[in-house]
Amino acid sequence: MQTGSLSCPIPIEQYPHVLLAHGGGGKLMHQLIEQMFMRLFQPEVRCQHDSAVLEMPSGRLAFTTDSYVVHPLFFPGGDIGSLAVHGTINDLAMAGARPLYLSASFILEEGLAMDTLWQVVQSMHQAAQQANVRVVTGDTKVVERGKGDGLFINTAGVGVIEHEQVIHPQSVRPGDVVLLNGDVGRHGIAVIAVREGLEFESNIESDSALLNDVVLKLLEAGVELHCLRDLTRGGLASALNEIAEAAGVTIALQETSIPVRKDVQGACEILGFDPLYVANEGRFVAFIPQKSVDLALSILHSQNHPLAQVIGQVTESSAARVTIKSRIGTQRIVDMLSGEQLPRIC
Amino acid sequence: MQTGSLSCPIPIEQYPHVLLAHGGGGKLMHQLIEQMFMRLFQPEVRCQHDSAVLEMPSGRLAFTTDSYVVHPLFFPGGDIGSLAVHGTINDLAMAGARPLYLSASFILEEGLAMDTLWQVVQSMHQAAQQANVRVVTGDTKVVERGKGDGLFINTAGVGVIEHEQVIHPQSVRPGDVVLLNGDVGRHGIAVIAVREGLEFESNIESDSALLNDVVLKLLEAGVELHCLRDLTRGGLASALNEIAEAAGVTIALQETSIPVRKDVQGACEILGFDPLYVANEGRFVAFIPQKSVDLALSILHSQNHPLAQVIGQVTESSAARVTIKSRIGTQRIVDMLSGEQLPRIC
Repeated sequence: MQTGSLSCPIPIEQYPHVLLAHGGGGKLMHQLIEQMFMRLFQPEVRCQHDSAVLEMPSGRLAFTTDSYVVHPLFFPGGDIGSLAVHGTINDLAMAGARPLYLSASFILEEGLAMDTLWQVVQSMHQAAQQANVRVVTGDTKVVERGKGDGLFINTAGVGVIEHEQVIHPQSVRPGDVVLLNGDVGRHGIAVIAVREGLEFESNIESDSALLNDVVLKLLEAGVELHCLRDLTRGGLASALNEIAEAAGVTIALQETSIPVRKDVQGACEILGFDPLYVANEGRFVAFIPQKSVDLALSILHSQNHPLAQVIGQVTESSAARVTIKSRIGTQRIVDMLSGEQLPRIC
Repeated sequence: MQTGSLSCPIPIEQYPHVLLAHGGGGKLMHQLIEQMFMRLFQPEVRCQHDSAVLEMPSGRLAFTTDSYVVHPLFFPGGDIGSLAVHGTINDLAMAGARPLYLSASFILEEGLAMDTLWQVVQSMHQAAQQANVRVVTGDTKVVERGKGDGLFINTAGVGVIEHEQVIHPQSVRPGDVVLLNGDVGRHGIAVIAVREGLEFESNIESDSALLNDVVLKLLEAGVELHCLRDLTRGGLASALNEIAEAAGVTIALQETSIPVRKDVQGACEILGFDPLYVANEGRFVAFIPQKSVDLALSILHSQNHPLAQVIGQVTESSAARVTIKSRIGTQRIVDMLSGEQLPRIC
């Protein structure tokens, strides 16, 4: 499950585990930063400084942050490092921004295996390279054994918006079509399965993936994007409820249009989950006018999202809610997730 | 020690403590975000979105991040909330940037008192207002009891550099004068004293404070700033060692010029610390050419830094090191902090 291939640049025989001193501001912290973090991140900037100083192309600025506390650190299809890069870049993409820069801040628990940290750092580096984004600034803290849980990561991201569209729930209007880029529920099930030691018939991998390229392709092609939202905590249902509430509209879904893999559906039934509420890390919805649907779908299909399809529409109604028409033709309201379904899946 | 005055917007009788569900992506998380965080942060942007979309003045971009794990959460002179705003804004200021925007990401431990969180959020808000900086984006995660330590905060900051100076260790050159803006060692001692239940003769308060205004004043006055560095973990000694190494220069200090309060000196003697290595949160060094010294000092003195003075100089030497001339005239090398002196002071 561990992804990196380079040998750990910190001498493992001397420092097999993270010590409190690795966060203390002294020699060990500098060794960790210079030999591990700086080896992969921003290698052209050898000299540490309090802030990164960067060129900014003209355009509006997109700025976002997420902390990642996923447990376990490694899961089928990803790890906390790739997740911390994908998640924050996707949040920038959902604003229609071109991601430029990431920060990476680590809260390490004393006793974390040094090689585990190295695997995660390599995974972050690979994901950032794939996204053509630079990790330009960072921080490291260490907390005592029992005051953390191995490793938490925060990434913040900066991007530039180079177009004039206002991609925002308040741009959503009746008649808009809702597109979904693939099957739902895989990330949450992948994490919970490995955490609880469950074995399903097939190995369910997280859908964690970058969405920045496909969004930029949609924008370049001139698709009118009213709103974008990635489907993380709370799943499809919560994301659509947030948008319905912010936009003051009703969103009417067709259950038969929402792809759920059979193994995911089966796992959800065993665990008592509804896949509409299970977290994803590579799925998003796009609200677009009817005229752009064919173009948008052809771009999604050509960009490695073969299951992308229309799943519903914004209807004329004064009620802010999400409804779904089931396989047997009945209609029900899809509420926001109430309480906790899957803790620590991101 | 708790600073806020408004009553907690989350009904305490119903939710006296943070629950796992407050991070689960559902109704409780939305209630927490809307009623607590959005009440104070970016109230003009009522509608949540994945990224903040912001106007960016022209200039170079400064970008930084820090996670804060200080223990205890409240200490004389500040708390984790004010610290998380001061620290990140100061990192932007040290690049000569005007701070514009902050992100705020919370990792809460299940069971944290809701009112404690509210006190911290109010403190962040007050500090951000004082700095004229907006908290524009955020995130909330909750980890199970025993997997965190009450509350960790990450802030990332974005600022704009509106001048042409290159404020960087590599701009430091022989002949540069080193200014320090006040007495050292108070933050670390204030935190350790309350953590360990120590009582000193006087109540030592953290020096935690914003540095953005004074830096902008120095820039506006035309002071040539070669390098700035705030003195956090590892204290004055570690910061100067980092700069000496990055710039490849020798920095020669005068011990008698470095202000240390008597009560701080006394506490350091009891605890076995050297005040040169103790953390500060409102202190910085400036490397400037001799010609700018009088102007810089007059600005520092007029901006509430009455103890600001020259503490040393960059000398002609090929060795990257920091030396200090003691009160009795002997000279010794001041090394970087080795190991851990004070864990979790920021």
